Amino acid sequence: MQYRRLGKAGMKVSAVSLGGWINFGEGKVPDDEARRIVERAYELGINYFDLADIYGKGGAERQMGEILRQFPRHTLVIATKVFWPMSDDVNDRGLSRKHIMESIDKSLQRLGTDYVDIYFCHRPDPETPIEETVRAMDDLIHQGKVLYWGTSEWSAAQIVEAYEICERYNLYKPQVEQPQYSMLWRENVEKHLLPVVEPRGIGLVVWSPLAMGMLTGKYDEGIPADSRFAREPWAAERYLTEENREKVRRLKRIADELGITRAQLALAWVLRLNAVSSVITGATKVSQVEDNARAADVVLTDDVLAEIEAILGNAPTSEHA
Amino acid sequence: MQYRRLGKAGMKVSAVSLGGWINFGEGKVPDDEARRIVERAYELGINYFDLADIYGKGGAERQMGEILRQFPRHTLVIATKVFWPMSDDVNDRGLSRKHIMESIDKSLQRLGTDYVDIYFCHRPDPETPIEETVRAMDDLIHQGKVLYWGTSEWSAAQIVEAYEICERYNLYKPQVEQPQYSMLWRENVEKHLLPVVEPRGIGLVVWSPLAMGMLTGKYDEGIPADSRFAREPWAAERYLTEENREKVRRLKRIADELGITRAQLALAWVLRLNAVSSVITGATKVSQVEDNARAADVVLTDDVLAEIEAILGNAPTSEHA
Amino acid sequence: MQYRRLGKAGMKVSAVSLGGWINFGEGKVPDDEARRIVERAYELGINYFDLADIYGKGGAERQMGEILRQFPRHTLVIATKVFWPMSDDVNDRGLSRKHIMESIDKSLQRLGTDYVDIYFCHRPDPETPIEETVRAMDDLIHQGKVLYWGTSEWSAAQIVEAYEICERYNLYKPQVEQPQYSMLWRENVEKHLLPVVEPRGIGLVVWSPLAMGMLTGKYDEGIPADSRFAREPWAAERYLTEENREKVRRLKRIADELGITRAQLALAWVLRLNAVSSVITGATKVSQVEDNARAADVVLTDDVLAEIEAILGNAPTSEHA
Amino acid sequence: MQYRRLGKAGMKVSAVSLGGWINFGEGKVPDDEARRIVERAYELGINYFDLADIYGKGGAERQMGEILRQFPRHTLVIATKVFWPMSDDVNDRGLSRKHIMESIDKSLQRLGTDYVDIYFCHRPDPETPIEETVRAMDDLIHQGKVLYWGTSEWSAAQIVEAYEICERYNLYKPQVEQPQYSMLWRENVEKHLLPVVEPRGIGLVVWSPLAMGMLTGKYDEGIPADSRFAREPWAAERYLTEENREKVRRLKRIADELGITRAQLALAWVLRLNAVSSVITGATKVSQVEDNARAADVVLTDDVLAEIEAILGNAPTSEHA
Repeated sequence: MQYRRLGKAGMKVSAVSLGGWINFGEGKVPDDEARRIVERAYELGINYFDLADIYGKGGAERQMGEILRQFPRHTLVIATKVFWPMSDDVNDRGLSRKHIMESIDKSLQRLGTDYVDIYFCHRPDPETPIEETVRAMDDLIHQGKVLYWGTSEWSAAQIVEAYEICERYNLYKPQVEQPQYSMLWRENVEKHLLPVVEPRGIGLVVWSPLAMGMLTGKYDEGIPADSRFAREPWAAERYLTEENREKVRRLKRIADELGITRAQLALAWVLRLNAVSSVITGATKVSQVEDNARAADVVLTDDVLAEIEAILGNAPTSEHA
Repeated sequence: MQYRRLGKAGMKVSAVSLGGWINFGEGKVPDDEARRIVERAYELGINYFDLADIYGKGGAERQMGEILRQFPRHTLVIATKVFWPMSDDVNDRGLSRKHIMESIDKSLQRLGTDYVDIYFCHRPDPETPIEETVRAMDDLIHQGKVLYWGTSEWSAAQIVEAYEICERYNLYKPQVEQPQYSMLWRENVEKHLLPVVEPRGIGLVVWSPLAMGMLTGKYDEGIPADSRFAREPWAAERYLTEENREKVRRLKRIADELGITRAQLALAWVLRLNAVSSVITGATKVSQVEDNARAADVVLTDDVLAEIEAILGNAPTSEHA
Repeated sequence: MQYRRLGKAGMKVSAVSLGGWINFGEGKVPDDEARRIVERAYELGINYFDLADIYGKGGAERQMGEILRQFPRHTLVIATKVFWPMSDDVNDRGLSRKHIMESIDKSLQRLGTDYVDIYFCHRPDPETPIEETVRAMDDLIHQGKVLYWGTSEWSAAQIVEAYEICERYNLYKPQVEQPQYSMLWRENVEKHLLPVVEPRGIGLVVWSPLAMGMLTGKYDEGIPADSRFAREPWAAERYLTEENREKVRRLKRIADELGITRAQLALAWVLRLNAVSSVITGATKVSQVEDNARAADVVLTDDVLAEIEAILGNAPTSEHA
Repeated sequence: MQYRRLGKAGMKVSAVSLGGWINFGEGKVPDDEARRIVERAYELGINYFDLADIYGKGGAERQMGEILRQFPRHTLVIATKVFWPMSDDVNDRGLSRKHIMESIDKSLQRLGTDYVDIYFCHRPDPETPIEETVRAMDDLIHQGKVLYWGTSEWSAAQIVEAYEICERYNLYKPQVEQPQYSMLWRENVEKHLLPVVEPRGIGLVVWSPLAMGMLTGKYDEGIPADSRFAREPWAAERYLTEENREKVRRLKRIADELGITRAQLALAWVLRLNAVSSVITGATKVSQVEDNARAADVVLTDDVLAEIEAILGNAPTSEHA
């Protein structure tokens, strides 16, 4: 396994990590298969496990926490998140000091640990001042409940605001942003985030690096029943254009030449960026985690990257060039 | 129920809230009726419960805390206060570090909770430097015993001083002021507080929005025995002028046209201000809390507000206009 | 009893307080008499009890702590100190972070309390940077083990340095200085300290206000066996000049005219200064604490003060006038 | 024993101290001999015991901690360190916040104490920003787990960077650097560190003051079997040049004239610098600790120092002179 620093921080995360989104804590993956997946991931050198309170409404934290407890704590990088409504209650959501302080203790208890390595603000909260959120995160780090804090799907401007508030008031700065990023979803990362996170030493951990499965080639011939796009039409609408389908088909040749799958190609392509600390992958079977983990070893040459770019043809151009 | 942010903070409070002043902890409302009132309030969506150590000398915290314990903690916004003498002792009062630090633990124990959502300085203390008080509040927030702190009946200048000390020394800023405010008591809020709290994101929660009952119409025909004005002549003296009585009588027509009570009209009128996060109401009967709660749904049009203003005729004018 | 703020702090102390120096913790005052003295002091409204780890090498803290435990904690202002060697060990002394952090826990345990109201640096420590000492005190206040911190026998310049370091690094400022001060020992307080402590809101609590007994008249006719000057020749040498003896004799007339003792006159004279929060008195008998306590009620008119000044003739003159 | 302040800090350390490197925790020195060595060191006034998590992979902390537990905690200055890999795990090393926070608790548990007096960053970590490390150390001091923090084998520039980050963000400054230094290894301390640490009040504690045994004369006639140079060829290569051997032989005459051993001469020579707080010595036998301790009493006159300099002939010259 390849390990990368979390931005400029000293803590290192496996370049390929395992996420609990969708698959964990919802009864979808049975407990024994979940256990085999996590244990195999750990065996393969995956040390970063990405969770959120909302995944399975606490269930993912509980299920994965139960399994992770067998490993020495210092060999794990456990991340969880706060923001999405955990109930109908008006304060049981968002990034207020109240919700953050009440959520962390519940997450720690479900996970069965005294601290999380990374605590993410799962989305920006337009109804809470960034200063309030940042101060709550700073307190959690001083209290030892959190080692590093980060954001997810925050805009470049919001990340800069958080960072500058920290500089002004001497608070712990955000260390990582978790954006969606893939061959088919590039603009936010390449155009907006990179110019902001790299000079500040903020790392990126990427979710949906396979464009919700689209990049695996699974949809080459249509939408299989029981596939994600069958269940979630909005996802199909976002990705399943004829143009994208054609691109994915053409990527097959490159993958074949490298002797890898298109999924591995797509993960390795995300990892070509130095700013990316880890790509988060999901798995419902042991074989998937094995396939994904191997992507960390794939090196894409400049020639191959140029070939890919020629197929994708969607590199964002800067408005400030 | 309508919910509003506490100033610019991320925590939200019900526009109508339930206070423990006078009615709770003094044996006035029997325990079983108190329980029915609080449970009904919660059922109606009231989430903000306003207490003080001095209400019933700890009794209100104890009585309401006992009842609130049945609800999930995160669904509650519990506020209490410190300042008034709890005994004859020279240090058992005011806003010294000593009294604040000794009081919070007692309040938390009486309430049966690990933290309060809001801790109010119940009055300004001319015998303690504001810096001393602010630093004590800041420590309590870092320690997790308090989520937000506020003031009650502080002058605009004192609030600004507290806020600026926080900016200077990087301390937690005051988030809320609790002034008296009603159709018959307007000057402090409208002339002095609004220009100061709004730009600083400080919210207002209002006490005595019914002018101690005057605005309900209860005193239209004189002072009923066993009414508040009968028990507290100073209150009668403040509000029960012929001029006020006439205003209150004339408001009846507007309330009738809207199909609401004058109490609901008076509460909705206070809530017309964006800066007001909540109006604190009292109740000795379940029906009162039901009537008050409904006020959160009343919307007063500009025309109605103009009619009311014509009757009240007491809008303060700024000296700085 | 008269109460005064500790400088500009919100906490109030009795104008006359009881100290544990010499008399407590050394077996000199038997436990049952010590108990009667402390209980009587408390009854008379004395709330400030001044101790130090060194008094009886922990014995005074233990003896007085045992007695004080019967009173509600918030009615007490308990002070103790750190600096003097508690053993031969090279680090068991002074104002290093190490010694302060190791001493406070031992003092709290001996006293049987979770916090002291005031923690004094018993002397300046030329072998520790003031910044190190101030940061340790600041940590203790944040941790809740100490409410206010102060100095004893620090020079005006050292107090200013400590205060300015606090301003620079945003630390808790010193709140009180404990100097020696009496009719026969005036220069440090009147010439050096007052110009520095008053504008900074730092209070003074005064030790040896009776010039080690000299001002009581006890030595009018020589040195009684078993008196303090008999046991401590250096004290006799400092105070027992013919000139001082004459002054003390002449003060008797003024005291007699006021119907008070010379001890009460001397205490009231110290309390004429607004900057003085309390005079610390000792007692080996209940009657002494009763006599001393009464001094808090004595008011010295300008005429009387002028008469006293004429007798003393030792008002320091400023070099900067 | 002679005691020196740790730089400008108030805590004092014995000029000669006992280190756990190599000899402790690896089974090399049997438990009963280890106990005799430590007890004798303590008896001789040595109060500073220098450990590291890596020495015997926790074994040194465990072995020495067990022995030290018999002495009053305040009479001990216990130091330990963090940096070197404690396992193969990617995060079980270095100076990340994660590794520091996870390491201190393990060290405290092995040592059987609530705090260490000094916590060293055992080496600089090029893969962690100095700000991250400094903030972790600052938190540990506020939490009371560490009294002072320091560095070991950091460059002058890195120490300055750490110090300036502390000034900028108001954090606890580094108090001590632990460099290698001896008659045969001078450049880093004399040319680079002294100009930087002295004006900042940072002390030096020196490791390998005997040049890994070379300065004792043990290698005058070659490399004895079972000696350190026999076991560690790199050490022999560094020190065992013909030139050095000649210097060490010539130092014998000076030592003889002073009636001391060459080891004592070498230790006293290091202690000639005011910036040096302590020289760390090892021991596998009680007699060694006795010999080393005596070096603290040796005073080298200017004449003797000049003689030594003439023999060594290796004083570094400044590039900035």
